[in-house]
Amino acid sequence: MEAATKAVSPTVSFDTSPDRYRHWQLTLDGPVATLSMDVQEDAGLSPDYKLKLNSYDLGVDIELADAIQRLRFEHPEVRAVVVTSLKERIFCAGANIFMLRGSTHAWKVNFCKFTNETRLAMEDASQHSGIKFLAALNGICAGGGYELALACDEIILVDDGNSAVSLPETPLLGVLPGTGGLTRVVDKRKVRRDLADVFGTTAEGVKGKRAVDWRLVDAVYPTSQFKQRVATRAKELAAKSDRPENVPGIKLTSLKPKVTDNAITYSAVDVQLDREKRAATLTITGPEVAQPSTPAAIVSAGDQFWPLRAFRELDDALLRLRVAEPLIGTIVLKTRGDQDAMIALDELLLAHQDHWLVREILHFMKRTLKRLDLTSRSFFALIEPGSCFAGSLFELALAADRSYMRDDPDEPTTIALSKMNGGPLTMSNGLTRLETRFLGEPRRTAEALAHEGPFDPAEAMEAGLVSFAPDELDWDDEVRLAVESRAALSPDALTGMEANLRFAGPETMETKIFGRLTAWQNWIFIRPNAVGPKGALTAYGSQSRPEFDYNRT
Amino acid sequence: MEAATKAVSPTVSFDTSPDRYRHWQLTLDGPVATLSMDVQEDAGLSPDYKLKLNSYDLGVDIELADAIQRLRFEHPEVRAVVVTSLKERIFCAGANIFMLRGSTHAWKVNFCKFTNETRLAMEDASQHSGIKFLAALNGICAGGGYELALACDEIILVDDGNSAVSLPETPLLGVLPGTGGLTRVVDKRKVRRDLADVFGTTAEGVKGKRAVDWRLVDAVYPTSQFKQRVATRAKELAAKSDRPENVPGIKLTSLKPKVTDNAITYSAVDVQLDREKRAATLTITGPEVAQPSTPAAIVSAGDQFWPLRAFRELDDALLRLRVAEPLIGTIVLKTRGDQDAMIALDELLLAHQDHWLVREILHFMKRTLKRLDLTSRSFFALIEPGSCFAGSLFELALAADRSYMRDDPDEPTTIALSKMNGGPLTMSNGLTRLETRFLGEPRRTAEALAHEGPFDPAEAMEAGLVSFAPDELDWDDEVRLAVESRAALSPDALTGMEANLRFAGPETMETKIFGRLTAWQNWIFIRPNAVGPKGALTAYGSQSRPEFDYNRT
Repeated sequence: MEAATKAVSPTVSFDTSPDRYRHWQLTLDGPVATLSMDVQEDAGLSPDYKLKLNSYDLGVDIELADAIQRLRFEHPEVRAVVVTSLKERIFCAGANIFMLRGSTHAWKVNFCKFTNETRLAMEDASQHSGIKFLAALNGICAGGGYELALACDEIILVDDGNSAVSLPETPLLGVLPGTGGLTRVVDKRKVRRDLADVFGTTAEGVKGKRAVDWRLVDAVYPTSQFKQRVATRAKELAAKSDRPENVPGIKLTSLKPKVTDNAITYSAVDVQLDREKRAATLTITGPEVAQPSTPAAIVSAGDQFWPLRAFRELDDALLRLRVAEPLIGTIVLKTRGDQDAMIALDELLLAHQDHWLVREILHFMKRTLKRLDLTSRSFFALIEPGSCFAGSLFELALAADRSYMRDDPDEPTTIALSKMNGGPLTMSNGLTRLETRFLGEPRRTAEALAHEGPFDPAEAMEAGLVSFAPDELDWDDEVRLAVESRAALSPDALTGMEANLRFAGPETMETKIFGRLTAWQNWIFIRPNAVGPKGALTAYGSQSRPEFDYNRT
Repeated sequence: MEAATKAVSPTVSFDTSPDRYRHWQLTLDGPVATLSMDVQEDAGLSPDYKLKLNSYDLGVDIELADAIQRLRFEHPEVRAVVVTSLKERIFCAGANIFMLRGSTHAWKVNFCKFTNETRLAMEDASQHSGIKFLAALNGICAGGGYELALACDEIILVDDGNSAVSLPETPLLGVLPGTGGLTRVVDKRKVRRDLADVFGTTAEGVKGKRAVDWRLVDAVYPTSQFKQRVATRAKELAAKSDRPENVPGIKLTSLKPKVTDNAITYSAVDVQLDREKRAATLTITGPEVAQPSTPAAIVSAGDQFWPLRAFRELDDALLRLRVAEPLIGTIVLKTRGDQDAMIALDELLLAHQDHWLVREILHFMKRTLKRLDLTSRSFFALIEPGSCFAGSLFELALAADRSYMRDDPDEPTTIALSKMNGGPLTMSNGLTRLETRFLGEPRRTAEALAHEGPFDPAEAMEAGLVSFAPDELDWDDEVRLAVESRAALSPDALTGMEANLRFAGPETMETKIFGRLTAWQNWIFIRPNAVGPKGALTAYGSQSRPEFDYNRT
């Protein structure tokens, strides 16, 4: 099973653009965009499987994620997106089974994590960016196909006597739907749990009026009316948007980092890999002092504006580490730069947060930090002289599992907060990282935010903002020991522990998907009943029927 | 690995009493009870391991659960419970590692589920019954020992330079703490997540002032003051209780069901096992028409009062099915009896819900139904002529994954609601089963509760209270097919699907523990890094060190 990942991972790039899409067609018609799935069978990431019936692999989803991102930044005029298919009578058959079967456990888990993040990015665009999504199911919609529809605001299904929505994973494959399906069925669409039980165990799915009655879709229309009804509804959804009128978007250019065996280097982000220690050091360089000072100047700077550039690079680096570097268990986070410039930039962003582009940048920073929260590696922040853990960049220290701040009177180190630590960069649980940190002592959040100026190590410890502040004599040993001893622990236990400790406090649909549902999927994905020699995922599509160990757990 | 379960499970009985305890001493001193752990090394459920250092297996926890239950029913005068140990300098070393290592995956999962339910029963007693728990940690308190302390209202640790609290599962065993530890650390005690990270990866734990500073314990006292401080604090906690003055408790007698190869028969509960179909039929007979009508008469009836008797039997039956019958994947729920008598009894209970014993009975019914929600088997309710799915017993149909109601004009079938469906029997998510069912249409909850009299099949379908109402011609085939096709599905996928569909809506610490945390534990419990030939759980206590596959997932 390792072979599949080894074959696949080197070829994965998260960099794409509409002119290079092989599986999606993005068409624009004023306020309504249409994203049409048209998966090329032979263009999967690996030649080991064919992407039949609009089934997908990670490569297909990378294009979808790219399209959604570009609609936010490059097309501020778009207010509704129709998600449909160019294949006759088939919307989407879901994740490709043969791809799943041939993948390692880690690949399956990372694949599901990315597709989940993409679905949540659609919901984020709907909630915060005035882009509504309408799933126009022109045919069979199974498994991951229906989960994509569930991530849309509304679902219209063609009523042709054949087209159904379904989650056939449990009855056909012995696994769970991998992209939030069960959670969204009962928690987003609020389908009654007994009907959800029937739906989730019925391979052929539900169609027509019953699909509406069970709340699985919002409407069904006969083939003759389908296209017109979809178009009408898309226009209605678009009419409710608060996106700007008649403004041009900005262009998202390719990142093109320099990649060597042991380093990935971008303009503001640098990753150094120490394979022997199974650790990486990820350093972000903060903004230069001179920054655009008006929305017009920000638009003009476009994707070279530091917050967008740096967080796009951070996002890409995290994705590369997840997919290509599974043996790197610990990521040491460092920053460098001018803290005052970072704070000033935060103030600029907040002063113009109602401007459409600034709004997009803020939500992208939020999503990138969530990506970090959800990355199953240990993060240690090292706060050293010359570092720039201030405001938005201090979120990295708050997102880290631990932080170490060097306390040396001869080379002073400081951290600083800004209003960015008090609001816009919320976690999946709906709270800020400061609020999550201080659940037990809520007053500390307000106190920290009210603090004037930077914190020295003693103040930072007193305020509870860093984990440890070793002095210069202990620093090297303490940091080295922390990284080394982390690397010696079971990577599975760390993944489980971090997933449970990072998200204290309230649960949201998002934390349910990444906590509860993901964990159950991971469990089932390694059970012999799914992936053993006679498991259902292994047997699917072959002549043999699965053989189960029927002991319940 | 199967051997261990086979050796262990036949000897498990959930029936015990203080005079038969082998591992706990229960002493009573007016309003303060003391539960002292004194585990007998050689009295484990299996001779394959020794329960050293107050480590525990399921047998030890069954006694703890029994003691807590008896304090509620038999000792209404008890208002505070000190949980401590009789072993010198050792409070509790946690779940026995050698027991875990020798157990099947299913056994480990069921063991953790029961211990979790017991800890939650302590918190339920604190929240609803006026019994406060004080953990008096007189020595080393590791893993499950600390998780037991976390379930108490307050934790006092002796400050002797040696005694520490710890969760060494991740660093020593490569697994997660199995009884809610991670969740309670960050969500109940609200320990800062970076400190929780350090705590959860430090095998030796944290002691003294640091344990207080990190919120891991409430107070530390030197050995010379420890006993006195514990006694004082226990009296203070007892003083806040609303338990009654000077009333006698009732006796909980042994259930003594008749057990044969294919049946478990109690007075009001009957279980018939169909091993070929991997299904059981669990039938509850409702209350007789003549019931006690005053609190005094209820006290006099004691544990023979129908609600207490029937739900104790249901509770025991569920536990037996979990532990002894893992191949029974589907449980068909039936009832029979007089619906009017059931409704009248519900009204009696609610009229006297402030009486201490009625309060205990209501909370016990609630906990038993939660036990059903948390049982990883498929439940189908069959509502037939002569059945008694009314009020409290209708909760069984609401708890079921599906319900089928027979629609035959010649043999009418009805269901009925009472106020018991509108309040006291909440699920782990804090909502009633009706509220959870109708998250998408909240008005239906109020409408169903306002309905006068029983519902016939058409009314029940219209109100959304049952899943299907086949007519008498289809009934046999439809029911048979439902049970048969369920039995053919992957038991793991069903467990995961049911765990996700049963608890829509809000999350609580309880759902976090059983959803998120349990799922991660299950995953890690079957990973080679824990239980493989060179995994950490396998290697523990041997000469060899674990060898990990360091790929992160």
